[in-house]
Amino acid sequence: MVEHILVAFNFQCLFCLPVSSDTDEIPGIGQYEDFHTIDWQRDIARDRMRHRYIVKRKQNSLFDLVKGAHDAWSGWVCVLLVGLATGVVAGVIDIGASWMSDLKHGICPQAFWFNREQCCWSNNESTVSLDLGNCSQWLTWSEVLGQSREGAGAYIIAYLMYIAWALLFASLAAALVRMFAPYACGSGIPEIKTILSGFIIRGYLGKWTLIIKSVGIMLSVSAGLSLGKEGPMVHIACCIGNILSYLFPKYGRNEAKKREILSAAAAAGVSVAFGAPIGGVLFSLEEVSYYFPLKTLWRSFFCALVAAFVLRSINPFGNEHSVLFYVEYNNPWIFFELVPFVGLGIIGGVIAAIFIRANLYWCKYRKTSKLGQYPVTEVLVVTAVTAVLAYPNPYTRMSTSELIYLLFRKCGVTNLDDLCDYNRNFTDVKSAIDLASAGPKVYRAMWLLVLALIFKLVMTIFTFGIKVPCGLFIPSLCLGAIVGRIVGIGMEQLAFNYPTIWMFGGECSTGKDCITPGLYAMVGAAAVLGGVTRMTVSLVVVMFELTGGVRYIVPLMAAAMASKWVGDALGSHGVYDAHINLNGYPFLDSKEEFAHTSLAADVMQPKRNETLSVLTQDSMTVEDVEVLMKETEHNGFPVIVSRESQYLVGFVLRRDLNLALVQARRTLEGLRPNSLVLFVNSNVQQQPQPDSPPPLSLKNILDMAPITITDQTPMETVVDMFRKLGLRQTLVTHNGRLLGVITKKDVLRYVKQMDNEDPNSVLFN
Amino acid sequence: MVEHILVAFNFQCLFCLPVSSDTDEIPGIGQYEDFHTIDWQRDIARDRMRHRYIVKRKQNSLFDLVKGAHDAWSGWVCVLLVGLATGVVAGVIDIGASWMSDLKHGICPQAFWFNREQCCWSNNESTVSLDLGNCSQWLTWSEVLGQSREGAGAYIIAYLMYIAWALLFASLAAALVRMFAPYACGSGIPEIKTILSGFIIRGYLGKWTLIIKSVGIMLSVSAGLSLGKEGPMVHIACCIGNILSYLFPKYGRNEAKKREILSAAAAAGVSVAFGAPIGGVLFSLEEVSYYFPLKTLWRSFFCALVAAFVLRSINPFGNEHSVLFYVEYNNPWIFFELVPFVGLGIIGGVIAAIFIRANLYWCKYRKTSKLGQYPVTEVLVVTAVTAVLAYPNPYTRMSTSELIYLLFRKCGVTNLDDLCDYNRNFTDVKSAIDLASAGPKVYRAMWLLVLALIFKLVMTIFTFGIKVPCGLFIPSLCLGAIVGRIVGIGMEQLAFNYPTIWMFGGECSTGKDCITPGLYAMVGAAAVLGGVTRMTVSLVVVMFELTGGVRYIVPLMAAAMASKWVGDALGSHGVYDAHINLNGYPFLDSKEEFAHTSLAADVMQPKRNETLSVLTQDSMTVEDVEVLMKETEHNGFPVIVSRESQYLVGFVLRRDLNLALVQARRTLEGLRPNSLVLFVNSNVQQQPQPDSPPPLSLKNILDMAPITITDQTPMETVVDMFRKLGLRQTLVTHNGRLLGVITKKDVLRYVKQMDNEDPNSVLFN
Repeated sequence: MVEHILVAFNFQCLFCLPVSSDTDEIPGIGQYEDFHTIDWQRDIARDRMRHRYIVKRKQNSLFDLVKGAHDAWSGWVCVLLVGLATGVVAGVIDIGASWMSDLKHGICPQAFWFNREQCCWSNNESTVSLDLGNCSQWLTWSEVLGQSREGAGAYIIAYLMYIAWALLFASLAAALVRMFAPYACGSGIPEIKTILSGFIIRGYLGKWTLIIKSVGIMLSVSAGLSLGKEGPMVHIACCIGNILSYLFPKYGRNEAKKREILSAAAAAGVSVAFGAPIGGVLFSLEEVSYYFPLKTLWRSFFCALVAAFVLRSINPFGNEHSVLFYVEYNNPWIFFELVPFVGLGIIGGVIAAIFIRANLYWCKYRKTSKLGQYPVTEVLVVTAVTAVLAYPNPYTRMSTSELIYLLFRKCGVTNLDDLCDYNRNFTDVKSAIDLASAGPKVYRAMWLLVLALIFKLVMTIFTFGIKVPCGLFIPSLCLGAIVGRIVGIGMEQLAFNYPTIWMFGGECSTGKDCITPGLYAMVGAAAVLGGVTRMTVSLVVVMFELTGGVRYIVPLMAAAMASKWVGDALGSHGVYDAHINLNGYPFLDSKEEFAHTSLAADVMQPKRNETLSVLTQDSMTVEDVEVLMKETEHNGFPVIVSRESQYLVGFVLRRDLNLALVQARRTLEGLRPNSLVLFVNSNVQQQPQPDSPPPLSLKNILDMAPITITDQTPMETVVDMFRKLGLRQTLVTHNGRLLGVITKKDVLRYVKQMDNEDPNSVLFN
Repeated sequence: MVEHILVAFNFQCLFCLPVSSDTDEIPGIGQYEDFHTIDWQRDIARDRMRHRYIVKRKQNSLFDLVKGAHDAWSGWVCVLLVGLATGVVAGVIDIGASWMSDLKHGICPQAFWFNREQCCWSNNESTVSLDLGNCSQWLTWSEVLGQSREGAGAYIIAYLMYIAWALLFASLAAALVRMFAPYACGSGIPEIKTILSGFIIRGYLGKWTLIIKSVGIMLSVSAGLSLGKEGPMVHIACCIGNILSYLFPKYGRNEAKKREILSAAAAAGVSVAFGAPIGGVLFSLEEVSYYFPLKTLWRSFFCALVAAFVLRSINPFGNEHSVLFYVEYNNPWIFFELVPFVGLGIIGGVIAAIFIRANLYWCKYRKTSKLGQYPVTEVLVVTAVTAVLAYPNPYTRMSTSELIYLLFRKCGVTNLDDLCDYNRNFTDVKSAIDLASAGPKVYRAMWLLVLALIFKLVMTIFTFGIKVPCGLFIPSLCLGAIVGRIVGIGMEQLAFNYPTIWMFGGECSTGKDCITPGLYAMVGAAAVLGGVTRMTVSLVVVMFELTGGVRYIVPLMAAAMASKWVGDALGSHGVYDAHINLNGYPFLDSKEEFAHTSLAADVMQPKRNETLSVLTQDSMTVEDVEVLMKETEHNGFPVIVSRESQYLVGFVLRRDLNLALVQARRTLEGLRPNSLVLFVNSNVQQQPQPDSPPPLSLKNILDMAPITITDQTPMETVVDMFRKLGLRQTLVTHNGRLLGVITKKDVLRYVKQMDNEDPNSVLFN
């Protein structure tokens, strides 16, 4: 009797044996290929095995004890490192972008690495106003070239230098992205959502992407393009999270566990982008993350807080507040004002819907036309147009975040902008400000703001999607802030002219400044951002942290709600989901309802008249298996009892099967093409034929606990299981008999088909 | 040939036909019995059917359109109503409790319904100090009884009146709870966690509980017991949510959907308890809710915000800030201070662990000894002891929230308490305060605080669990605030005596007030509360909203983290989980890992040598089914192909089977005990015997999509499925053959058994 060959692989049974971290003899086990979907249950099971193995060995020696402690702490250490690194990188980017933005206007001859503010500081001049050229140490380019500071000649030189620098920065950014890291373009949030939902895109979070995206975002912000650095900051933070997770095999080698770190990193990204740690965590929870176990909430919060703390210590904005747009006012709002706030929400929703539609149309056009083949040219054209049009208008010439800050601010003694040209006298710094009629400069500023609004809206439509790093938060906030400020000034003048009408409820009759136009700007900004991204709670919290306005949660919420509803009514998706759709990423949205009344039987593969590719538990030869693998492209095969009685035994991944066969051929002498492949323990009854070769037992690569459903299961339940359990596929049975398989791809294609879209637009796994 | 009787039930197929909301002909379908676990998937499927039915009918008529709109909006309307009602009830409770608390000390003769503050206000006297008797309109009981305000006689009268009122209030509270609503006692949070995890406790959220709990909490707070009204506020809000959900059949008749409203209500409860809407939502998300779909996050936030807004409009605290303990300081903290903050976290964790252990011991003793039979007596004894011991010490005589506020405050010009008896002169209100040495009264106050700490700790141990409404938040905060203030004063004096040593980093050398003892009190309060409840993110956010201290997130977080880790190291559970355990509620914690390496086969019922109670699809008679139902107590039965080939067909609930049989006996003429019961469509081949009665088809009560797993599935995966999919049971198969069933109860009992606890302590469903 031929003895069964003991399978002597150093090959871990993925579901039964402890996995030690240094015995990955077959490289690539537990790894996934590019553009594949991960299987959360499998990865989490692997991690639990590893964890138990470490806990069990903890008693053995001091070294193992230390190893156990290291393992227990590695999650915290990892997010600490991610937080620290994110804070530092964000600080560098903030400082660099600020310096380069100023470089478009002039230089500091004493120390060229100073930006304008630092240059003027270093000479102890007071810098209160935001006007250009307010400090003699700072030389504008016209002065460097021997011209005077004022006059037409100087203006033209400044204009040309502005355009030249912008083109230089933009071409550098585009060239770097094109040459070194094509994944570094765009905001990155749609891709990160997809990756966090369990998809593999190799290199998307790699070191080159990190470096190029960090440099590129500084360049593209400095180029004066209509984009922000906040979205890319989330991508950068996720790159940092990914890279640092490789220091901890627990996270680096396990895609499901790695996503815990990435969720925390995304929170840190928003946290540094806006100085809003709580908002960052909620953003990660609500918008980005997919499978967010509550125990990682605390860790994400820690990560976000560390990052914000580091950034605040670096203090790139040079003020006491770590937030971007700290507002100093604290006036109460009047109940009636909820009406204009909701109105702003509606306007914001409409603007957002226009933006998303137009941007999507343009992006589709880029994809399908020849335009997509000239990314660098496109960047240069957009930059040139932006620079030429932006310079003449002071509100578009200044950086977008400066503009937002200006719009959010209250008109006080120190605010000398045209927007604050009211007919009032400041007698005492501390006394309340009176209501006043707007001066002519205010009306001029409003016209310029309307032009700026149109310019920004149009340019952002063309900018979002070009091949440089570019985010959407700041342009959206800016659009909303302009609209809000205009509405706010309108309300203010209404209150000045008719202070006693009922709707102000007596609040304005004292002549005190009862309406704050800056608050309208804030609310408008929240409305457009909410309409564009469809964030809800996290938006309100971010705005609240961003501005320090504790009192204004209700107005912000009213606007955000109105904007979301209007947006949902006008177009179905937020910009990130729209771009996910456009790019065909296999993303199963956890917020959308599955709206069809299908059963699992309608969705599963194979369809009628096709045969299912299966393995049998003990009647196929090595050759049969190889033929099956060659003929099909499935990522896994169900194992059944026999062709005649199709009862389900388990599931085998193609990758594992492949590796096991290669390994077996290398190590087992007696393996022949007609060797039986066994997926069960060999029965005593079943005597092998005397002349048959020894069978190959592959029981340990068999997943004996595949998730199964019946063919009558409603698809809503199936989709729910895919989302909540993070499945890669599920097997469909009827009365115990295997009928077919449903993969994530099948679900996504089915949804597309039902929505009358092309099912083949889904990227396959 | 006998024709098959068409089953003409007005009995909806739960999984295939649209359910109209007014055809529940068989009462109780879709309802659950008391102390049963709900099946989320089933309830959600029912809701989806209902929703589709309404959407489909929308085109039919205007009425249906309105109905559809009403249905779409009912979730928002419901949470709006819940928010409004919660705000109003919270306002009434706050005002009532404040009035009754003052009644212990005296009365306002002009208007007895005024509390002391309002009484003094009504006469335009300025009330700055917190001392008693500072206003001539307010009469203390000794004055009412003709004594002077000062002197030994007056003191004794005041003392006795204090005790008398306390006993009166406490006995009233205990009597009300005992007579009308036994569920109104305690904090209610453990039970709400259990209910939200999918358990039915009838009456726990009913109107009587609401009324008695609202009145009872006012009484028990006024009685001066060591308890807070914040936990019960969550229970009250959930009662409101439950009652109002009956206005909307979508929520009232569907247990799974109702829990969405309850989650929002819990958020509103915390929101009004602390004036912290964001913290409330996070509390609901992190601590209370179980199955929290992200789409309800936004609705919970809305509910919490409405409630907070209403409460603020009622303004029960009479100040501008809607928060309980608004702190006005904004001093930066020194990096080195993180060391004492973490120290406070450790102390807080230890105090919390002592409290939980002692309280649990006492509660167990109450349950097992005769003490449990005299709840009213116990309340009276505890009240008497509390009143007698509390009165002499001014810090325990004042209400606990006043004490916390005092401890959180900074010593400024207006703060005349002994705690602020520093050797300093206030020259200018606006100038910075200098560091100063503590005067003798500060040391006296510290001794009194130490006594207060011991008193509060001991009394809270005995108080939490007595049969009156009582919460834990305020006593925990108070314990921590006392410890924190003491440590803070110590640090402050250290800085005063050695201002230049390295650890203060030069911050204290200017003589400015660099250490804020009130901040230490805040951090200490967070530490103890964190240790007791094991809240993390929500704790930090609540504290941050509670005090308005935006700057202090990092210190709060450091302390909360240290406290949680120390607590986890010393005792495994937070107080709510400990009480859930103590009471044996079937709660499957979603935060705890399932630590054992079992497989589904180890946990499932029946064990070896027992037979599984099953139905067959087409071979059992009505009599067989009735015998099976009589002989077993299972809540449901799997249906298999036949005894010989045990392949799974579906699952039938006992309740549905019962109802269907009763209905069939009532409406079908030809039904006889030997009628066959069919769970499949009758086959053509299978001709009924000529003389046999017509079979009864029960296909439409069969769930043809039960969730199944294989016997080799690791229990972690099974537990994960129970949690995430909200299962009630799952069927275990091997190669398609049914082996057994795992219910939630089986899992809980197994966990208990593995932890060497009594598995029978789990309440059965």
